[in-house]
Amino acid sequence: MTNKIVTLGEIMVRLSPPENKLITQCESFKVNYGGAEANTAVMLGNLGMKSYFVSQLPNNSVAESSMNYLRSHGVNTDYIVKKGKRMGLYYYEKGNSLRPSRVIYDRADSSITEADYKDFDFDEIFKGAQWFHFSGITLALGENCRKLVKEAVEAAKRNNVKISIDLNYRKQLWSYDDFLEAVTPFLRDAYLVIGWVDLDVNLKDYKPYDFTSKALEEEYFIRVMKAMQHNFNIKYAATTLRENFSSSHNALRAIAYDGNKLHKSNRLEFNILDRVGAGDSFAAGMIYKLVQSSEIQEALEFANAAAAIKHTIEGDANLASCQDIMEIVNGNTSGAVKR
Amino acid sequence: MTNKIVTLGEIMVRLSPPENKLITQCESFKVNYGGAEANTAVMLGNLGMKSYFVSQLPNNSVAESSMNYLRSHGVNTDYIVKKGKRMGLYYYEKGNSLRPSRVIYDRADSSITEADYKDFDFDEIFKGAQWFHFSGITLALGENCRKLVKEAVEAAKRNNVKISIDLNYRKQLWSYDDFLEAVTPFLRDAYLVIGWVDLDVNLKDYKPYDFTSKALEEEYFIRVMKAMQHNFNIKYAATTLRENFSSSHNALRAIAYDGNKLHKSNRLEFNILDRVGAGDSFAAGMIYKLVQSSEIQEALEFANAAAAIKHTIEGDANLASCQDIMEIVNGNTSGAVKR
Amino acid sequence: MTNKIVTLGEIMVRLSPPENKLITQCESFKVNYGGAEANTAVMLGNLGMKSYFVSQLPNNSVAESSMNYLRSHGVNTDYIVKKGKRMGLYYYEKGNSLRPSRVIYDRADSSITEADYKDFDFDEIFKGAQWFHFSGITLALGENCRKLVKEAVEAAKRNNVKISIDLNYRKQLWSYDDFLEAVTPFLRDAYLVIGWVDLDVNLKDYKPYDFTSKALEEEYFIRVMKAMQHNFNIKYAATTLRENFSSSHNALRAIAYDGNKLHKSNRLEFNILDRVGAGDSFAAGMIYKLVQSSEIQEALEFANAAAAIKHTIEGDANLASCQDIMEIVNGNTSGAVKR
Amino acid sequence: MTNKIVTLGEIMVRLSPPENKLITQCESFKVNYGGAEANTAVMLGNLGMKSYFVSQLPNNSVAESSMNYLRSHGVNTDYIVKKGKRMGLYYYEKGNSLRPSRVIYDRADSSITEADYKDFDFDEIFKGAQWFHFSGITLALGENCRKLVKEAVEAAKRNNVKISIDLNYRKQLWSYDDFLEAVTPFLRDAYLVIGWVDLDVNLKDYKPYDFTSKALEEEYFIRVMKAMQHNFNIKYAATTLRENFSSSHNALRAIAYDGNKLHKSNRLEFNILDRVGAGDSFAAGMIYKLVQSSEIQEALEFANAAAAIKHTIEGDANLASCQDIMEIVNGNTSGAVKR
Amino acid sequence: MTNKIVTLGEIMVRLSPPENKLITQCESFKVNYGGAEANTAVMLGNLGMKSYFVSQLPNNSVAESSMNYLRSHGVNTDYIVKKGKRMGLYYYEKGNSLRPSRVIYDRADSSITEADYKDFDFDEIFKGAQWFHFSGITLALGENCRKLVKEAVEAAKRNNVKISIDLNYRKQLWSYDDFLEAVTPFLRDAYLVIGWVDLDVNLKDYKPYDFTSKALEEEYFIRVMKAMQHNFNIKYAATTLRENFSSSHNALRAIAYDGNKLHKSNRLEFNILDRVGAGDSFAAGMIYKLVQSSEIQEALEFANAAAAIKHTIEGDANLASCQDIMEIVNGNTSGAVKR
Amino acid sequence: MTNKIVTLGEIMVRLSPPENKLITQCESFKVNYGGAEANTAVMLGNLGMKSYFVSQLPNNSVAESSMNYLRSHGVNTDYIVKKGKRMGLYYYEKGNSLRPSRVIYDRADSSITEADYKDFDFDEIFKGAQWFHFSGITLALGENCRKLVKEAVEAAKRNNVKISIDLNYRKQLWSYDDFLEAVTPFLRDAYLVIGWVDLDVNLKDYKPYDFTSKALEEEYFIRVMKAMQHNFNIKYAATTLRENFSSSHNALRAIAYDGNKLHKSNRLEFNILDRVGAGDSFAAGMIYKLVQSSEIQEALEFANAAAAIKHTIEGDANLASCQDIMEIVNGNTSGAVKR
Repeated sequence: MTNKIVTLGEIMVRLSPPENKLITQCESFKVNYGGAEANTAVMLGNLGMKSYFVSQLPNNSVAESSMNYLRSHGVNTDYIVKKGKRMGLYYYEKGNSLRPSRVIYDRADSSITEADYKDFDFDEIFKGAQWFHFSGITLALGENCRKLVKEAVEAAKRNNVKISIDLNYRKQLWSYDDFLEAVTPFLRDAYLVIGWVDLDVNLKDYKPYDFTSKALEEEYFIRVMKAMQHNFNIKYAATTLRENFSSSHNALRAIAYDGNKLHKSNRLEFNILDRVGAGDSFAAGMIYKLVQSSEIQEALEFANAAAAIKHTIEGDANLASCQDIMEIVNGNTSGAVKR
Repeated sequence: MTNKIVTLGEIMVRLSPPENKLITQCESFKVNYGGAEANTAVMLGNLGMKSYFVSQLPNNSVAESSMNYLRSHGVNTDYIVKKGKRMGLYYYEKGNSLRPSRVIYDRADSSITEADYKDFDFDEIFKGAQWFHFSGITLALGENCRKLVKEAVEAAKRNNVKISIDLNYRKQLWSYDDFLEAVTPFLRDAYLVIGWVDLDVNLKDYKPYDFTSKALEEEYFIRVMKAMQHNFNIKYAATTLRENFSSSHNALRAIAYDGNKLHKSNRLEFNILDRVGAGDSFAAGMIYKLVQSSEIQEALEFANAAAAIKHTIEGDANLASCQDIMEIVNGNTSGAVKR
Repeated sequence: MTNKIVTLGEIMVRLSPPENKLITQCESFKVNYGGAEANTAVMLGNLGMKSYFVSQLPNNSVAESSMNYLRSHGVNTDYIVKKGKRMGLYYYEKGNSLRPSRVIYDRADSSITEADYKDFDFDEIFKGAQWFHFSGITLALGENCRKLVKEAVEAAKRNNVKISIDLNYRKQLWSYDDFLEAVTPFLRDAYLVIGWVDLDVNLKDYKPYDFTSKALEEEYFIRVMKAMQHNFNIKYAATTLRENFSSSHNALRAIAYDGNKLHKSNRLEFNILDRVGAGDSFAAGMIYKLVQSSEIQEALEFANAAAAIKHTIEGDANLASCQDIMEIVNGNTSGAVKR
Repeated sequence: MTNKIVTLGEIMVRLSPPENKLITQCESFKVNYGGAEANTAVMLGNLGMKSYFVSQLPNNSVAESSMNYLRSHGVNTDYIVKKGKRMGLYYYEKGNSLRPSRVIYDRADSSITEADYKDFDFDEIFKGAQWFHFSGITLALGENCRKLVKEAVEAAKRNNVKISIDLNYRKQLWSYDDFLEAVTPFLRDAYLVIGWVDLDVNLKDYKPYDFTSKALEEEYFIRVMKAMQHNFNIKYAATTLRENFSSSHNALRAIAYDGNKLHKSNRLEFNILDRVGAGDSFAAGMIYKLVQSSEIQEALEFANAAAAIKHTIEGDANLASCQDIMEIVNGNTSGAVKR
Repeated sequence: MTNKIVTLGEIMVRLSPPENKLITQCESFKVNYGGAEANTAVMLGNLGMKSYFVSQLPNNSVAESSMNYLRSHGVNTDYIVKKGKRMGLYYYEKGNSLRPSRVIYDRADSSITEADYKDFDFDEIFKGAQWFHFSGITLALGENCRKLVKEAVEAAKRNNVKISIDLNYRKQLWSYDDFLEAVTPFLRDAYLVIGWVDLDVNLKDYKPYDFTSKALEEEYFIRVMKAMQHNFNIKYAATTLRENFSSSHNALRAIAYDGNKLHKSNRLEFNILDRVGAGDSFAAGMIYKLVQSSEIQEALEFANAAAAIKHTIEGDANLASCQDIMEIVNGNTSGAVKR
Repeated sequence: MTNKIVTLGEIMVRLSPPENKLITQCESFKVNYGGAEANTAVMLGNLGMKSYFVSQLPNNSVAESSMNYLRSHGVNTDYIVKKGKRMGLYYYEKGNSLRPSRVIYDRADSSITEADYKDFDFDEIFKGAQWFHFSGITLALGENCRKLVKEAVEAAKRNNVKISIDLNYRKQLWSYDDFLEAVTPFLRDAYLVIGWVDLDVNLKDYKPYDFTSKALEEEYFIRVMKAMQHNFNIKYAATTLRENFSSSHNALRAIAYDGNKLHKSNRLEFNILDRVGAGDSFAAGMIYKLVQSSEIQEALEFANAAAAIKHTIEGDANLASCQDIMEIVNGNTSGAVKR
């Protein structure tokens, strides 16, 4: 068991006002670094996996800071190519109560959008690897990124590396049609897909599933996920289901379908210190358990607990220990002081 | 439609401990600037109105900072007279949960208390204006301020400018008797009065209306507001009704009487980041809508949402955008992240 | 009435990440000073008692800072011996919601563990004193500390000073067997004991009482406390009973037994800004009232309110005023702003 | 005398590490807003001129913050067009002693580079204006910006507005050849040019003038500036001459040529709190005095003192008062406390 | 030897921008507490003297914070009367290099200006005291303060307590004529006077002695101080002489006249972290040594070193240890790290 | 060329007051991590060497933070054993001008003092390594540490790894006699020794060489270093020579003896932001160059420049880039802004 896990994607600078200020109020920004796959890589590195993050970054000290951050949490940065002109960044204004959190992207033309797949030796990268993970966001970053992912996926398959995809559709980045067209070819033979596409509905009618205050519609998910597996030979389809009470108060449940049965996690309710990266923690939690051959139900509970506790940790990535997460899996959510 | 709105009052330095510290714990104070009418002016400027703030400030760099703040939010400061010896200030210790917020005033002898109405050319100030707003607090600041308001009101009437008054009785500043005596003459012909005085009860028996956990006593308010309108020829009487659950958790409803009907807003429940300035936001919300000829019900919903969202924004003033407020009016209070 | 109250114990440096960060995230630590008895001493000094803290500290500027802190709140430091090599310290990582708070102790070999009782003139220290307080934590700090307490208790008795003990069992510091063996001799003739030991159960089976979401088992406490009083001639046995909903949300009730009757305080529910020192506030509240000859029920309500409001104040010690606490005792928990 | 002064250029977000940290060390960035012409506009607004800043910015809250900043210092923002996709930004790592300050630009594709001159009504903008100022940096931002400047200059001339240009060559932005080609057409008929081009040397040999530790070569400057005036009909050519002792310690002198005589300011030596914006302060100082019809020598002393005191003020812009600057002009550089 | 030293004066809130910001730039103020005599009292308490500070403060938590500060440094606050309406405060904008530091006073109508001498039991206060110190600033605070000082001085004399006066003329507070009239009666029989008045010059011609870059004019000081001693029976007249190179760089020398000889300290040159309170440290240094019967030359060196090292310590008061100061007295100014 | 460099020693928590505060003034500590060899390891990792740090740390999140820090700068932490009870720590109070910096150690009984050499597989550790570095401080940490170093040195020699020792005598840790006795056996066959011992003088007479304001006594150093090389077969002896002008202002020169000639670096004068770790930077600079087979003169200039620029960087370690250091080597010390 090598526990070598490869992720590919973008890492950005995140700038957010201190405390609970508005962007228009602040005279400083807190700096974090993150991106969908980078967040997954950091959680995996922090949990002791041999986590490798593949990307492209410019050759300046801001990019160096992001690599220092990755390394500090045990993420290997040897396969990050230093080329291109700028780091992507985003502004994150944290909401509270009635006021929603907001994200302003400034990631166009970042280094990774100029990536040339020939600069990456994917057979070297996947040597000895067990798992490869990426998300739909990387596919949204343009033709170069899609080529890069394509090369990576082919090399992963050549090297018998399991593949997971977090669909992660973001409407600010592209249309749902373009998303579907880009992501579909990659779904085939994925070991794990996070999120779902409803293959039976007209794409024009697509609406995000509104889960808050509703009972779980098991039949809906069974139908959708069954179709995904049938069409694409996916091993597991899994997703979190979020209830939004306010900017400061949410709940999460997770479900997974293994071809036979819809597995369901416990429901966890929590306050929110930082809203970003819960889905990326869910992905990391699934991978962490499945790479160690856990049962799907065990992986699902762990991943949902990881996604939930992420909301209590500042920054994009989940820095909770395995023990922290297992306490929640085991039902210890009373927060009694450890001393 | 000029959208020129004039407010008159005091702007003070607000000093508050960082985070949730007590005054006796802090080695720094966060600095904000505010005062009842100034807060209203800032919200109006921030929403794009031609907002003019009339006041008197000393000629030093602390006062200059407060003017920079006003200007930054689009408030015109050309009619602020630079005279007198000191800026008023107040200390604000933010409470949480069981511990109440506290205000310590140090505003005696501030520049505006020495204002000479002859330094202000009110006919120039009200030229092209649509609205004039002030509050009972300014009347509490002494004889000079009362003369100043009197001159302003007369000029406003000469120039056909609508007048709104926020009664804002503060028992630390004066007795209820003195308040009533001072405020009564200004009520006549006001277009909008915020708050209410119960003309049927003996003043000595006056108690703030305790609303928390009580059903709305519609008949009471209809009686009181009807009396106000009858006596003073007021167009609209409006007020917020607050429920205090703890320092960190409140709810708000608003009502308005138009001579015929008691209009009622939705009830909004929220956590509190900053307790100050909700009433001033309510006033600004009413003015913002009425100056654009909205219906009273629409104005009331907007103003109540503005007052509610103010609690999620640090500082004295409401810096939410019109769109932020309209989302709450439209029932989007789930705080789902905008990205 | 001298109101001279003597406490004996350790004061440590507390290092905690700013805001809600993890220890692994922070580049600075907030510095506070605290320890069970020191926290009690500070609350008593802050409330105007003649509070004397007896301890041993090294001769360096970190220790000097802790003494400056004590003095700032009116605690007399004349009986602190300056000897030994280091200050104890502890790291406090504040949790929130699902994530528990954590304490990492680094207090081994601190100055007080090297204390020589002959350096302390306890007859001088207790001259004119009314009360002596210490906790089980000090007994856990080793043989020198146990000797120190023994000398102090004997001198206190010689000088007719009332004695209170907060049992404060901490499993990171010693086993329950060792704890019981050490604490038992001191229970005899204590005026007030906080916490309880169940003399009827096999020590091996000891489990902390799990109170959350349970009805108060009055009979259990009456049996246990009656046994304590019978065996040790204790005047009052008292304890708080905590409900843990999450790291950010708890409730407290307190009970006391006077030999005849189980007294019960109101139940108070609150959010948590700082979890440390609630029990020490309870002790100080009991002492503050009993030293002024209040009834046990009055003392109990005051002490429980003090323990509750402590959670809204940062740092180890309760800096609320007597009036702040009395407002809660009187049921004013709505947090309405004081202005 | 209207004192209406128009500047045109870009305003960027500046991100700089707190204190003296490296970019790779910081977990927050201080936020300032600046750019060559914006800095000049802010100093002029702060000194009480009617300062108008013309630019293009995206429609988001980061851009709104930069406009709030401009307004706070009295700069009119009515002529800023809200279009385009991103704000330019730059990272500024402040050096000290042996370690140089560093700038990392991330300004490509900012909103102003997409500006369409037809969105700007320059005849309206220059109505009643006395002065128009821009710098070579704006010309470096691409074809759209050069067209924008061209339209502005033509409208300025139509409206009899005096024009000043700060050459401000930046080698990270373009080659010296391209710079010269772009800037030359604008020199004709400029009232004031800051900086110089040596028309007699082969451009390939161009080197920045190294002034530190050298005597002032008056003849060189007389020759160069005379040639500029002769070729382009410039009224005044002026420049600062900097001595670099270390990142923390510099000196400044300024010279100006009026066609007859080389005017020289006093030499000022100072420590450096913030290295950015000194040249922009020099420009503002020249404009401030010349717009009020001061003599060139008086303008030069004022502008050099303004440039010098800028180094003691954090941020891009000079917020010193006129009196602050005049004290230095008058030789009061001892820094004795004002109380 | 009791080492009981009494000081009388005002303690104010000091608000200063963080880092090196201007008042117009800051969104928080650092909070310190200080005033001429309070600063002297704090240094004496910190050095282990029995330091008593006599004053009047309002009954609020800001004033309580200032008393906590005094107590933390060993200053007894038992004789501070809690009456009156507000704390005096001042804004301190720290300069650097060419930019001077500035003080904005907001101390009018502070509590001590309303002090009634009958609230102070000076015979109790001076019981067992060795020294009484006050400054000319307290005399400037109005008739009530002058009466208070008069009562104190008479009681001090009755109790054989030595008296020192720091003349501390501040032109923002009163005219030089008024100053002289007020201070003269108190000079008689003072043991130590800090500063000087030139009795031979016409008061109208008074100018502060400009020492920078000048040789010490010994004869001038001998003449002036001799006259003071002759007229008022002063034991010692002493003063510091400051050289101002810039806001960040000064030098100090001190001189004292004992009736026979002009004693001169070493000259100390230093950078400035905080400009306030150097003179108050000088006073404390003189008192600290003279109260222990040191020779005047030894006192002078100690006091000058104390004044010099104060500039390296933030806040109003000198918190250096005796050993820190003695190292400088002994010529160890190289700043080599202590480890 | 593997560029694998192994260092062995302790890494501690460093707690230092923010800004320029005294320990007795601060309510927070900045957190850094450092120790002599760790600082050397971090600079080497940051410069791109394969840097391995060998140590022992407790299993808690404070120690984890120090490992995150090491990893972030490219230092491999695989050979750090997780055992023992506490992290060493030290308080660092930064001086300025006349006030010296101070260090308070609290490192007794740290984990590494309990290290068992059998937990370290040194043949594995040194496989493929080129260099091994440690300092006299590690030898001072007790018998376990001395055994650990002995095992490491023997394994290094077995594996043909070059050895460097930084003598680093600290009088707070042990006597000079004990130091000499411990260090002498390790000197034999060292490739590089930093610092010197004068074998001709009676140890009792040892005094640190006082270099400030003295000419370099070349003959002295030639004699001393020649003796070291003769007695111990050392390849290079090198040292820095520091001039202390004040806490904020120093100069450095470095010398090295190669058996034939005394090599001398340029002299560099600088202001001081952080005084710690300059010697460790010197060691890293020497190793960085020698491991790449540079000439001794080139190594010496690089190492001295590295030591000098370290003073401008906060924290224990030198994070300057190779290019930053080379600019100083090349004489570019004017600090002109890079843009």
